[in-house]
Amino acid sequence: AMDANARLTPLSTDECHELLETHRPRLGRLAFADGGRPLVLPVNYVAESRVLWFRTAPGSKLLAALRMQEVTFELDHVDTTWEQGWSVLAFGRLRMVTDDDELEAARRLPLQPWAPGDRSHHLRLDIDRVSGRRLR
Amino acid sequence: AMDANARLTPLSTDECHELLETHRPRLGRLAFADGGRPLVLPVNYVAESRVLWFRTAPGSKLLAALRMQEVTFELDHVDTTWEQGWSVLAFGRLRMVTDDDELEAARRLPLQPWAPGDRSHHLRLDIDRVSGRRLR
Repeated sequence: AMDANARLTPLSTDECHELLETHRPRLGRLAFADGGRPLVLPVNYVAESRVLWFRTAPGSKLLAALRMQEVTFELDHVDTTWEQGWSVLAFGRLRMVTDDDELEAARRLPLQPWAPGDRSHHLRLDIDRVSGRRLR
Repeated sequence: AMDANARLTPLSTDECHELLETHRPRLGRLAFADGGRPLVLPVNYVAESRVLWFRTAPGSKLLAALRMQEVTFELDHVDTTWEQGWSVLAFGRLRMVTDDDELEAARRLPLQPWAPGDRSHHLRLDIDRVSGRRLR
C-alpha cells in the first residue's frame, strides 16, 4: 500500500463515527468541487446517527447543497508537537433540509453557523462512507 | 453576491499571504480530487515567498504531486465560541521536489511530516491564487 507507514494506522468505521460524534470543538471542514479545484471551508456541525448537520448563510455551501453534490467532511486533531493525532473523512451527498419536521429537529441542534443571519439554512450530509487514520 | 453577509469580510491577497506565513501552529489541510470526491488531509507546512512546502511519506499526497495536480490548501482559525475567526485558501499545482539545490533548501525547513520515515519526500505548491475571509 502506498500509505504503508508503521506509525499511521487506519481507524475502523465505528471509531470514525465515534470521533465525529464526540470530538469537541465541533469544528470541521467541508470540501467540494468548485469548478475543478476543491473548495474547503471551516464549518460547525452536529453528527448524529451517521448524518452530519450544518447551518449556513447563502453562499457556496448552500449552492453545493442545492446541487446535491458529493462532498467530503474532514475532522482532525493533531497535537502541536506532531507526536500524535488523527483525522477522519466522511463522504456523502449534501442537501438542503426542506421538510418541515426535519427542519424543526434541525433547529433544536447546537449548530453555530460560521456567519449567523436571518437567512440561515440547514444542510445535511448523509454519510455513505468514512475513513480515518491515527498517528502514534 | 451569494456570500453577502455583514459579518463575513473578504481578506486581501496580502492578508492571506501574511496569515499563511505567520500563523502558528503550522497545521493546514491539503485537498485534492481523488476519483471524483475531494480528499482532505491534515498537513504541516512552511509558507515562504508564495510557495508552500510539505514533507510526506509515500501516499496519496505524493501521488497527487507526481500527477502535478491542482490542489487547494486550507488554513483557518476559529475561536471556540464562533465569535471570530478567519480562513484562507491557497490554490496551485502540487509537485515533488527533485532538484538537488531545491531539496537541500527544503531539508532545512522546519517541516514535520504527519508520518515521519526514511522515505519522506518534499513537495511544493506554487500558489497562483489565494482567497480568504474573516468573521467579525
